[in-house]
Amino acid sequence: MSQSEARIALNEFAAKISEEHLGPLWDNLGHMITLKPKHEVIPYLWKWQTIRNYLLEAGPLLALGRESERRVIYLQNPSLLKDGKIGYSTNTLYVGVQLLLPGEVAPSHRHSQAAIRFIIEGDGGAYTTVDGEKTYMERGDLVLTPPWTWHDHGHEGTEPVFWMDGLDVGLVKTLTGSFFEPYHENKYPLSGPPDGSVARYASGVRAISERKRKGYPSPLINYKWSNIKQALEGLERLDPDPYDGYAVDYINPTTGGSADARIGTTMQRLTPGMHTKAHRHVHSAVYHVLEGSGYTVIEGQKFEWEQGDFFVVPPWLWHEHVNTGTGTVHLFSVNDRPVMEILGLEQEEELRDNNGQQEVARTFEPARLSK
Amino acid sequence: MSQSEARIALNEFAAKISEEHLGPLWDNLGHMITLKPKHEVIPYLWKWQTIRNYLLEAGPLLALGRESERRVIYLQNPSLLKDGKIGYSTNTLYVGVQLLLPGEVAPSHRHSQAAIRFIIEGDGGAYTTVDGEKTYMERGDLVLTPPWTWHDHGHEGTEPVFWMDGLDVGLVKTLTGSFFEPYHENKYPLSGPPDGSVARYASGVRAISERKRKGYPSPLINYKWSNIKQALEGLERLDPDPYDGYAVDYINPTTGGSADARIGTTMQRLTPGMHTKAHRHVHSAVYHVLEGSGYTVIEGQKFEWEQGDFFVVPPWLWHEHVNTGTGTVHLFSVNDRPVMEILGLEQEEELRDNNGQQEVARTFEPARLSK
Amino acid sequence: MSQSEARIALNEFAAKISEEHLGPLWDNLGHMITLKPKHEVIPYLWKWQTIRNYLLEAGPLLALGRESERRVIYLQNPSLLKDGKIGYSTNTLYVGVQLLLPGEVAPSHRHSQAAIRFIIEGDGGAYTTVDGEKTYMERGDLVLTPPWTWHDHGHEGTEPVFWMDGLDVGLVKTLTGSFFEPYHENKYPLSGPPDGSVARYASGVRAISERKRKGYPSPLINYKWSNIKQALEGLERLDPDPYDGYAVDYINPTTGGSADARIGTTMQRLTPGMHTKAHRHVHSAVYHVLEGSGYTVIEGQKFEWEQGDFFVVPPWLWHEHVNTGTGTVHLFSVNDRPVMEILGLEQEEELRDNNGQQEVARTFEPARLSK
Amino acid sequence: MSQSEARIALNEFAAKISEEHLGPLWDNLGHMITLKPKHEVIPYLWKWQTIRNYLLEAGPLLALGRESERRVIYLQNPSLLKDGKIGYSTNTLYVGVQLLLPGEVAPSHRHSQAAIRFIIEGDGGAYTTVDGEKTYMERGDLVLTPPWTWHDHGHEGTEPVFWMDGLDVGLVKTLTGSFFEPYHENKYPLSGPPDGSVARYASGVRAISERKRKGYPSPLINYKWSNIKQALEGLERLDPDPYDGYAVDYINPTTGGSADARIGTTMQRLTPGMHTKAHRHVHSAVYHVLEGSGYTVIEGQKFEWEQGDFFVVPPWLWHEHVNTGTGTVHLFSVNDRPVMEILGLEQEEELRDNNGQQEVARTFEPARLSK
Repeated sequence: MSQSEARIALNEFAAKISEEHLGPLWDNLGHMITLKPKHEVIPYLWKWQTIRNYLLEAGPLLALGRESERRVIYLQNPSLLKDGKIGYSTNTLYVGVQLLLPGEVAPSHRHSQAAIRFIIEGDGGAYTTVDGEKTYMERGDLVLTPPWTWHDHGHEGTEPVFWMDGLDVGLVKTLTGSFFEPYHENKYPLSGPPDGSVARYASGVRAISERKRKGYPSPLINYKWSNIKQALEGLERLDPDPYDGYAVDYINPTTGGSADARIGTTMQRLTPGMHTKAHRHVHSAVYHVLEGSGYTVIEGQKFEWEQGDFFVVPPWLWHEHVNTGTGTVHLFSVNDRPVMEILGLEQEEELRDNNGQQEVARTFEPARLSK
Repeated sequence: MSQSEARIALNEFAAKISEEHLGPLWDNLGHMITLKPKHEVIPYLWKWQTIRNYLLEAGPLLALGRESERRVIYLQNPSLLKDGKIGYSTNTLYVGVQLLLPGEVAPSHRHSQAAIRFIIEGDGGAYTTVDGEKTYMERGDLVLTPPWTWHDHGHEGTEPVFWMDGLDVGLVKTLTGSFFEPYHENKYPLSGPPDGSVARYASGVRAISERKRKGYPSPLINYKWSNIKQALEGLERLDPDPYDGYAVDYINPTTGGSADARIGTTMQRLTPGMHTKAHRHVHSAVYHVLEGSGYTVIEGQKFEWEQGDFFVVPPWLWHEHVNTGTGTVHLFSVNDRPVMEILGLEQEEELRDNNGQQEVARTFEPARLSK
Repeated sequence: MSQSEARIALNEFAAKISEEHLGPLWDNLGHMITLKPKHEVIPYLWKWQTIRNYLLEAGPLLALGRESERRVIYLQNPSLLKDGKIGYSTNTLYVGVQLLLPGEVAPSHRHSQAAIRFIIEGDGGAYTTVDGEKTYMERGDLVLTPPWTWHDHGHEGTEPVFWMDGLDVGLVKTLTGSFFEPYHENKYPLSGPPDGSVARYASGVRAISERKRKGYPSPLINYKWSNIKQALEGLERLDPDPYDGYAVDYINPTTGGSADARIGTTMQRLTPGMHTKAHRHVHSAVYHVLEGSGYTVIEGQKFEWEQGDFFVVPPWLWHEHVNTGTGTVHLFSVNDRPVMEILGLEQEEELRDNNGQQEVARTFEPARLSK
Repeated sequence: MSQSEARIALNEFAAKISEEHLGPLWDNLGHMITLKPKHEVIPYLWKWQTIRNYLLEAGPLLALGRESERRVIYLQNPSLLKDGKIGYSTNTLYVGVQLLLPGEVAPSHRHSQAAIRFIIEGDGGAYTTVDGEKTYMERGDLVLTPPWTWHDHGHEGTEPVFWMDGLDVGLVKTLTGSFFEPYHENKYPLSGPPDGSVARYASGVRAISERKRKGYPSPLINYKWSNIKQALEGLERLDPDPYDGYAVDYINPTTGGSADARIGTTMQRLTPGMHTKAHRHVHSAVYHVLEGSGYTVIEGQKFEWEQGDFFVVPPWLWHEHVNTGTGTVHLFSVNDRPVMEILGLEQEEELRDNNGQQEVARTFEPARLSK
């Protein structure tokens, strides 16, 4: 049999076995097991003013209650729209922005998805309750509501409060592990004073009542911005990370690992003029600009951002950050690095050419979805 | 504004923000976060004789080498064909059957996907080499080739050898973590005598040279059927598991956890007449019938099997097993339970009605794919 | 044989086998395995002024160098003097007070014993270097020099500096694990800026450069008093521990466990008038009074203390603490709890009688050793 | 002040502060922190026939019951007799030999000390019950009774049974952690069939009922000699360990670590003529000769042994083993290596001179204790 005859025979064979729901690996190996990560997730950027204005518009339209549960507008990565109206920000992560008006309550529920909140705007009157511990939310705070913990949000202040929600909706959907339960009342009963966990865990120590505590969920539920900011100031005494500037991960004080078991959370500080080197990694991330202005180059495309904006860094794409302003830049991000690491799938590569920085081929312009 | 006016306004609002790639959570929360696991994976069954015959037909058609890498026919779950010709057995798992003919070599490579081999047919002349350790493959053996270990297969015997391959192709694809590398020669150099790891790890002890060894990959690469069979005989002195009969997990002797870090591997023994109770769990599994005959009821559908057959138990579907033959049944299966457990997503529920057993509504018949 | 004859026969038997270095367990079981912990360690107290004055006297007498290594006066528990002049504070712990004069260097060495330093007096000009990281020592700071790390002490200031040394000399001696090595120069070379580890680990976060760091030795080597004090202030919002008041353990930020792997370190705050309940535990402790005045009742004996004093709480003795002053009391202590816990030997019991407080039978007076 | 004057002044100073129970570290540092491990434990050897004969003599003299608890003759290291009649085999370990006569019961109790049993002689009718699981004891079996588990021994056979007891009496005494409790009846109630744990844990697998089991105590309580022997046969295919021959550690199947958390247990096989190289380590060991004859050189002294004998290898002494017989030698030993490792104190050194073997300076002769 000649080579071309064999090829034809194999094609016929492939067609035949496909009728029995069988496939020939030799034809498809390269699609299943790729040399490098392949995916369809695209980088994207959303403007804060757009999101904020829409949310304020939605405010009077949507009453909070069991029918709505939450007043959130979420970031829909255009590349992940295949399932109709359900979408996320990356293959694993969902990010939305939530608005709570004075006096409102977003009722108590729990779910198997991990969730974090990062406070964008507010006068400190809003709070989250996690399994009975109440914590007030101030701009820059990171609040955890770990998987299957009861949580509700309320607002005792006078101004609208906005925060970022990060959940691993995509991951849990893929792994078919979604469970949800509403609490039978709007508010879960309180136990203990507000922010007890913040008092029990502090720099270098923990209360002796916590001696037996270990593992997840993290016993600390609010990572106050005032502490994090101080940490970043201290870090400036040392060399910055070449790819991420002065950067810290939020950690679970009982393990030293990621604050949330599955969603990684990181804060980066870029000093004026700082331009990092490019690298790429298996994990993906969604960024929120807490302060400052600049741009991020992702796979040769420039994404310009200013305070409040959100953008996506998909898996295994080269990326670097630049502070173009006169002030400090603070970039908060959620990522799926903890999942990649615990499963042994994380890899990282640094760009070697061109002194570690990409050439910018084009600048991102949001593409309006045609109706 | 009346309720219906509000509903109309919200619909218009949803359409408007979708143009900016934003979504209203209140419309889609129930799709993102479901009350119970939802997915599209269907249960399915493939007959051993079909697979075996096709493989023997492919034997002379396909030469082994760098163009083909492996002679494998894989199980294509009909519900997972959306990506064209690439498909798996469940949302996370890939299963295929490999044929190696006397004298052949399936060349050395490595990949980030985890892989296990379960030997179906062979005279013991075939072997796998894992990072330089050679192990001969006999019927019923489980051989590990952990992520990113070099592995090749060869055959010094005289009869065709068939084995089951289990890889976490779907998981790694979803998590965008695929890396692949061919070795620059067909065979990776040997180090040490064959089956050194089998000698170093035995029942209740390990060689003192392994004192520092801990974690993954498992240092034991071949779990001999003769040992496992003996273990199952011992288990018959105790009560069987209500859902799985006499059942064991293959374990990593340095941790007591799953033999492979991501792919769970289990062997079940059903004595004649045994009919287990039904349960369901988040993890999915692909079964291979090593010995015996019977059926499995999956969500009310009866899947009849005999020696050599394969079938899929998708996530969160009720299932129970029955031995209808006169001999012992041995069911080997791969699953993604280690992933679910390490990520905190595993849940299990037992059927309470009808004494824990389902009513059979229909019997599975394979649906030929229309060309 | 009558019972008394048997007893005589057994006594003769015991004498006979003892000649062959064999013993009859039936006679000695109760001595080997006691119903409750038994030991000879007594509680004791040393006055700060005594120690301080002696150290200042020793200052001009003793030149620092390789012959002396360190200018330290250590606490010799009277009950542990059996080995001649070598003694410790408890069965496992050694505590001393070190004096370093301006310009002096206590030369670099390392040993298998764990060591901690707690700074009592100083103007901040003194420093410790641990494996090349320099850290300045201020009153109230806890500095770690973990087992087998190179460490030297220097003094760039103008006033004498005093600090407490805590080592597990007794534990390591019993377990025959002592190793010691002097560095070939007085100072170990510096690497990186001072207090890099303090910058990398802060409240709730760690620098991303530390992502791979895990376990011991703790990467954080100085626990600043300013942070710990703030933590204790936060704790006052919650209920105090019934036995220890407002109390924190110093922790290794990569594990959530004890800062040093073997020596536990704890800081307690007693508010004015606070009188804790009594408990006892297997682990022993040596206390240093950082601030305030009061007393501790140990097994019915009252130990009155004021700022700077040291006292020993032996294993399994009832003890409770009282603040009799008008200011806040801060008690720092080292203990062997981590060893007891990792070996599964820790037990704790609370006093139930008399509302949890002991009756004071007598007051401690130091017994001068007759010459 | 001249150097000699200073020396005199320091001596006077030392005397003065000692009256206040204070010590000068500069005089004693070298005694507290030694360059290499120092201790008083001497190597020693006891003959099996001596022990066995004494036990048979004690048989009729001593009735088993709550007054005697156990009929055991223990090995009294001559160097550890300071506390009067209480003594052990090494600084941490106690070893004795127990005799149980047909029909006897050694009543149920529990203690914080870890204990292992190694069966020397018996017809299989004797058993140990551990927290309600009964296991029959055959020659060569290792049976665990982990800390604080209820255990009793009984004998349904017809011949006297002898076994070795290994407990960490010295360690627990030093760490003041001894607790003991007799059960209120002679026998603890049985639950489940005999040797359930042996059935649940087998080579390479464990029963699925044990999925959640992790850590200590080991769920496996009997390590059957038939399995261990088979493991050693497999090991002979590989190179022997230079210091210990063909050697295995007994492991906890849920962790891969030592079978008992604190007492290490090892079996070594020396083939005829085998002469190992010398090494030394911090941990100490007590050996029992299960089979064969030969000698061990410890710090230049030759200890000749034959079947049944016991000998002590103290910490940090050079030692090597020789099989002088025509048959296989099997040496079982208990050690405190797990404690040293978990506390970070283990060190090992290999002898480099003289091709790794010591010169024999003298041969051990037991010294009769003068009455």
